[in-house]
Amino acid sequence: MKIKLGENAYGKNAVELSKIIRHADHHEFRQVSVNTLLEGDFETAYTQGDNTRILPTDTQKNTVYALAKDHFTGSIEDFALYLANHFTTNNPRVHKVQVEIQEHSWTRMQFNGELHPHAYTGGGAEKHTALILQEGNALSVTAGISDLLILKTTDSAFEHYIQDAFTTLKPASDRILATQCTATWRYTKPAGDFSALYSNIRHTLLHTFAHHKSLSVQQTLYDMGKAVLEAYDAVQEISLVMPNKHHIPFNLEPFGMKNQNEVFVATDAPYGYISGTLVRE
Amino acid sequence: MKIKLGENAYGKNAVELSKIIRHADHHEFRQVSVNTLLEGDFETAYTQGDNTRILPTDTQKNTVYALAKDHFTGSIEDFALYLANHFTTNNPRVHKVQVEIQEHSWTRMQFNGELHPHAYTGGGAEKHTALILQEGNALSVTAGISDLLILKTTDSAFEHYIQDAFTTLKPASDRILATQCTATWRYTKPAGDFSALYSNIRHTLLHTFAHHKSLSVQQTLYDMGKAVLEAYDAVQEISLVMPNKHHIPFNLEPFGMKNQNEVFVATDAPYGYISGTLVRE
Amino acid sequence: MKIKLGENAYGKNAVELSKIIRHADHHEFRQVSVNTLLEGDFETAYTQGDNTRILPTDTQKNTVYALAKDHFTGSIEDFALYLANHFTTNNPRVHKVQVEIQEHSWTRMQFNGELHPHAYTGGGAEKHTALILQEGNALSVTAGISDLLILKTTDSAFEHYIQDAFTTLKPASDRILATQCTATWRYTKPAGDFSALYSNIRHTLLHTFAHHKSLSVQQTLYDMGKAVLEAYDAVQEISLVMPNKHHIPFNLEPFGMKNQNEVFVATDAPYGYISGTLVRE
Amino acid sequence: MKIKLGENAYGKNAVELSKIIRHADHHEFRQVSVNTLLEGDFETAYTQGDNTRILPTDTQKNTVYALAKDHFTGSIEDFALYLANHFTTNNPRVHKVQVEIQEHSWTRMQFNGELHPHAYTGGGAEKHTALILQEGNALSVTAGISDLLILKTTDSAFEHYIQDAFTTLKPASDRILATQCTATWRYTKPAGDFSALYSNIRHTLLHTFAHHKSLSVQQTLYDMGKAVLEAYDAVQEISLVMPNKHHIPFNLEPFGMKNQNEVFVATDAPYGYISGTLVRE
Repeated sequence: MKIKLGENAYGKNAVELSKIIRHADHHEFRQVSVNTLLEGDFETAYTQGDNTRILPTDTQKNTVYALAKDHFTGSIEDFALYLANHFTTNNPRVHKVQVEIQEHSWTRMQFNGELHPHAYTGGGAEKHTALILQEGNALSVTAGISDLLILKTTDSAFEHYIQDAFTTLKPASDRILATQCTATWRYTKPAGDFSALYSNIRHTLLHTFAHHKSLSVQQTLYDMGKAVLEAYDAVQEISLVMPNKHHIPFNLEPFGMKNQNEVFVATDAPYGYISGTLVRE
Repeated sequence: MKIKLGENAYGKNAVELSKIIRHADHHEFRQVSVNTLLEGDFETAYTQGDNTRILPTDTQKNTVYALAKDHFTGSIEDFALYLANHFTTNNPRVHKVQVEIQEHSWTRMQFNGELHPHAYTGGGAEKHTALILQEGNALSVTAGISDLLILKTTDSAFEHYIQDAFTTLKPASDRILATQCTATWRYTKPAGDFSALYSNIRHTLLHTFAHHKSLSVQQTLYDMGKAVLEAYDAVQEISLVMPNKHHIPFNLEPFGMKNQNEVFVATDAPYGYISGTLVRE
Repeated sequence: MKIKLGENAYGKNAVELSKIIRHADHHEFRQVSVNTLLEGDFETAYTQGDNTRILPTDTQKNTVYALAKDHFTGSIEDFALYLANHFTTNNPRVHKVQVEIQEHSWTRMQFNGELHPHAYTGGGAEKHTALILQEGNALSVTAGISDLLILKTTDSAFEHYIQDAFTTLKPASDRILATQCTATWRYTKPAGDFSALYSNIRHTLLHTFAHHKSLSVQQTLYDMGKAVLEAYDAVQEISLVMPNKHHIPFNLEPFGMKNQNEVFVATDAPYGYISGTLVRE
Repeated sequence: MKIKLGENAYGKNAVELSKIIRHADHHEFRQVSVNTLLEGDFETAYTQGDNTRILPTDTQKNTVYALAKDHFTGSIEDFALYLANHFTTNNPRVHKVQVEIQEHSWTRMQFNGELHPHAYTGGGAEKHTALILQEGNALSVTAGISDLLILKTTDSAFEHYIQDAFTTLKPASDRILATQCTATWRYTKPAGDFSALYSNIRHTLLHTFAHHKSLSVQQTLYDMGKAVLEAYDAVQEISLVMPNKHHIPFNLEPFGMKNQNEVFVATDAPYGYISGTLVRE
């Protein structure tokens, strides 16, 4: 029996970077968290402690900050592409580079209908994400939204499911549907107006969720993904994860009251986990 | 030497409640977290395990859900007042009731300039808070905002401070100012249009933060509080906690580059902690 | 109407410091989180942005690291006392200093009954805390344990409580009692063998919890506090917060099974909150 | 262009379950978090909202609690195997079942060298994990440790790495090595004394970490995995993720002091991320 190294990778996570981009009439404020990950010809680093092929994670971090100065000027997808290409080009031992960026949302304050030039509010859970994979010249660009908390108070049902010895759930013809949705979609090619695409795809996801008559989370997930693939040729495939954030009617009968879908217990655990990927045939 | 019971209190925390309030043309969705806390004549419960004076925390929770049906119809301040009065009136052993409510923000989705009747986005860190203290007939109403993440990219300096043997900080004439602000204010009386007041006070806090030329977090805090007290007679006093969420310029000099207030390290720890209360004389 | 500054304070939070103390036969590893907080004659800093009296929070942080080299050699109480005295002595504008230290627990690994000289495991939620208040020469030393997760599977009941219209809880003669206990105690004087006291008091709290027949969380809390005051003259008063981490029997009757206190739902929210302070008369 | 459903799965997450197992002389307390995940012939559920093939996640949760009564009596691996087999056997539409269990560690209190029969301390970050995949009769059993926080104060270096234009890191011949290790290993067959194996493998991981002279995290990771594969034939392969929890020497030179590897800044972000899998050839 011999032992050998299988899959392996290393990089820097949680490189927290903020940037001010100064425009003529306002300051654009951006805040991102960057992860870099390298795979390649690193076996002796693991087996012998040979660091001569290792680009330290500290240097990867420095590189992110340094290149941000001139090259983080637009979308996170474009900045991640620039970083992936930099690491690929400058490190012959590296065979595969992954750059992942999460962007925190900051919104310019508005007073009397006018945007303030340099004051912002933040704090939303929702984040724009980008993931670049580069292997030599091969590039894949995946973008996404994480932690998009969406809810509808009606047009949602769940009925006609399997009944077995452990069933206690009552069918619901009208229930709250809430999810902390994470969607990721792969673009057909590694170029495009990624910021506009993100904004449009986000709108399509919200619009479909809001107007859909849901028979299950699975069906809503499918219709949201389908709407994106139908509307955007630039998208090759889309994956959605939609944990069901349950709002459970509180039983008021012991108190002689009737809960007509009014008062709910909002719970974190346990939660239904629903996922699906939609692809073009 | 004798030992005796000093301050004591008990209640239910994290009662997670959501509600649909059905209006003619739309559904209003509300989500709150309620804490109840009772003080009173409970010494024998502690010293002897005598539970005959104890209203179980489970019953306190049930009460919150049950009373929400008919009485959580407007502001969280009004609902908390109703709850505090209920516990006071029905429990003669209770001398002091505290009801604290945190409201999570949910925003109706908007399409083509129109609000959707029942679809929402959520997920913001910012919360509206209310704290009611009732002792017999004496009532105090405190409202607040927690986790209001605000940032300005300029009009902020920090200079001319004490220099000692441990000083390494460089004076900054132009820096990012960011804080996860928590503000709480006590109203002069236990009645009013609390929802409108909250919305207006929030606007005043943001407006002052945005337009103020900051010489320090302390000064910005003071001006924000002062603006609220000057504008709203209904407010008796206001306290602000403004942790300084540092964005530190990344040193690009080792790479032959100059960081002209462009690229920053966003840090969580350590952080400056600044607090202050403003009162009317 | 005039507006003025009331209570105010500022300092540095979350100064994350680790230290290696080299002994003859092993390395002692310590990890703490330090908060400093200053009160004093700072009104003009708030009202006018006058920073000439301000010791920057960055300098406070530097001071903690610098003084740790020679003065963090024993208990966190002694290091906090040293820091508080340093800030008091060197800053005449400061009237009150608060230094709070949380120590993360690291345990030396053990192999074949022998402690390893420099390898540790960590990761426990439980922390040793110290809080020093200094006003001129007046000193108060408070120590504590936070997030001490303790549980007993029996010798715990909750019965004979008030029944009202909102009661649904069934009395329990045998239930799980679990709490994430936070205890803080004030010492009678600002000197002593704080490390030994901490270790002994922790043992007394655990021993009392384990051997006590609980009629309620309130009663258990009281007996734990009483045991500490009775055993340690050095303790002036003790406060305990014991949130009730509920383990609720899962209803197996719909499946034709009987749950004989075997299978439980472990819940985080809502939770009972029980607090009490015991003092010497 | 046609759109179709690709990979999809659904289940219940965060089923928080605790259990008392009553032995002659003591109570055994166990606490786990269970995730179930089903894949199968569910296309119409997604495309048409056809729920007739759907076993609700609520029923999956009930099943976990109900089967825990008689079948959660030993290792989490064995309980997960039982659950996976139950879902496979009873749901012909299901092609693949995944059951994941995390066990929280609870330790019996000890007084005067004796274990207490029913009192426990908990609160450690470290968890024992198990993951069962069942596809028809094919079974894979993976066990692991997550969030194992380990640290050594010496016998760790990092030198001789690549230097480029963005390098600022100084080589270290003696540094702190700390990681929040997650290890997962796949067993060669779906039966065995999983509890004893877990305990032994954990010991081997700790022993190797403690006694290894580290030239890099990569090398330490490799040696830890190798030691497990060499010692346990029952293990087919092992994966380790070892984020580098940096402790960075604080620069005391501005204060005229020398930091001889004594005082460190403990940081959470950014962090080096190192991963590797070791397999038998």
